[in-house]
Amino acid sequence: MIFKIPTRYFLVSGASDGYTPLNAFDGALLQAGIGNTNIVKMSSIVPPHCQRIAPVPLPPGALVPAAYAAITSDIPGEMISAAVALALTEDPDRPGLIMEYSSRGRREAIEEIVREMVKEGMKLRGWPIKELTSIGIEYKVKKVGAALAAVVLWD
Amino acid sequence: MIFKIPTRYFLVSGASDGYTPLNAFDGALLQAGIGNTNIVKMSSIVPPHCQRIAPVPLPPGALVPAAYAAITSDIPGEMISAAVALALTEDPDRPGLIMEYSSRGRREAIEEIVREMVKEGMKLRGWPIKELTSIGIEYKVKKVGAALAAVVLWD
Amino acid sequence: MIFKIPTRYFLVSGASDGYTPLNAFDGALLQAGIGNTNIVKMSSIVPPHCQRIAPVPLPPGALVPAAYAAITSDIPGEMISAAVALALTEDPDRPGLIMEYSSRGRREAIEEIVREMVKEGMKLRGWPIKELTSIGIEYKVKKVGAALAAVVLWD
Repeated sequence: MIFKIPTRYFLVSGASDGYTPLNAFDGALLQAGIGNTNIVKMSSIVPPHCQRIAPVPLPPGALVPAAYAAITSDIPGEMISAAVALALTEDPDRPGLIMEYSSRGRREAIEEIVREMVKEGMKLRGWPIKELTSIGIEYKVKKVGAALAAVVLWD
Repeated sequence: MIFKIPTRYFLVSGASDGYTPLNAFDGALLQAGIGNTNIVKMSSIVPPHCQRIAPVPLPPGALVPAAYAAITSDIPGEMISAAVALALTEDPDRPGLIMEYSSRGRREAIEEIVREMVKEGMKLRGWPIKELTSIGIEYKVKKVGAALAAVVLWD
Repeated sequence: MIFKIPTRYFLVSGASDGYTPLNAFDGALLQAGIGNTNIVKMSSIVPPHCQRIAPVPLPPGALVPAAYAAITSDIPGEMISAAVALALTEDPDRPGLIMEYSSRGRREAIEEIVREMVKEGMKLRGWPIKELTSIGIEYKVKKVGAALAAVVLWD
């Protein structure tokens, strides 16, 4: 069913130059280990009882839901960064929240912003944070570059 | 199967300020009652024999297909609106058509535009309209705001 | 399951004017034969052993994953084009790669670019190309126009 609830998730990031912005994005997906799948973008929840696993190889061509931040740039020398953050609360029956952010700039600054974003999202829900994870990547563009950070849902 | 055909749908809307545009969008989803799910954007059909229901709580983290209009703004005091319209024809074996529109401006104007859009879409198909529904929302931005209107498919 | 792997695919294209950009896009989907389905955009792989078929009528309202290029324009007289290219390698256990591109300009130029893009993507993977297919369409805008080319996955 389309309405199935995933049971596993993992975090990945990647960056690459490429022939065009889409080729650079493809290279970033490949470097992140999810380049041969069909990523379907979704907004941005980890289901309750979903377990974090280490990144695994996915079946080629599988339809894979993911929450991701991505950025491309065609300005040689520009630094670009992408990051995702994930917050879980104490009650295991409540879902986790994912936020995504990308911008030119250094990874540290962009990852700090996305961590604040997820804190704000949990505050809005009134859910105390038990655990906050994030992953970010920065990339200095050669000609046409892309950076990507993702939470991938899996089963 | 990914190719499953949904059997229920409902209309929702929401609006919110937030720490960033994505936080405002998250707040709008929460206010619409679909903030703790994984919305997957789709284009824009109600399957035949799909039945309208009142909005229901969805399982947290479920993958939920929806057609939606959304807008964010960081201009304090700006009025933003989002609306969706849905037209059904007489033949129950034919699908319904959804259109989405968002812009700065008042709800009444934006909802009128999206209703015209769905009328034009039905005219293009040569299908007489039996029923036309719409939902819209307007929001006056405080710092960073978002407005959202959606048709959510469900099973 | 959401993670199901499609087994069939086909290529389509379409173009149309419309009352608004979204109406033009709707018209292009209709002309491509996929206008009464719920297209879910994905990135951009043909699963191994997936077989090409001639375009088939899809069940109205079905959730259909597709990789597509689309462009809209409101400049009367402007020529817009959209194209997708698909490369398969010799090893049947390896997936195929799809690239999408759209721009103002003539079909021939835009389709040539997307064919280069998919060649570059295969080079990045180190996979020799056994077969390269593409489809493109150009459209001269009357008032508000859209052009679309897609690889549709099916089962």
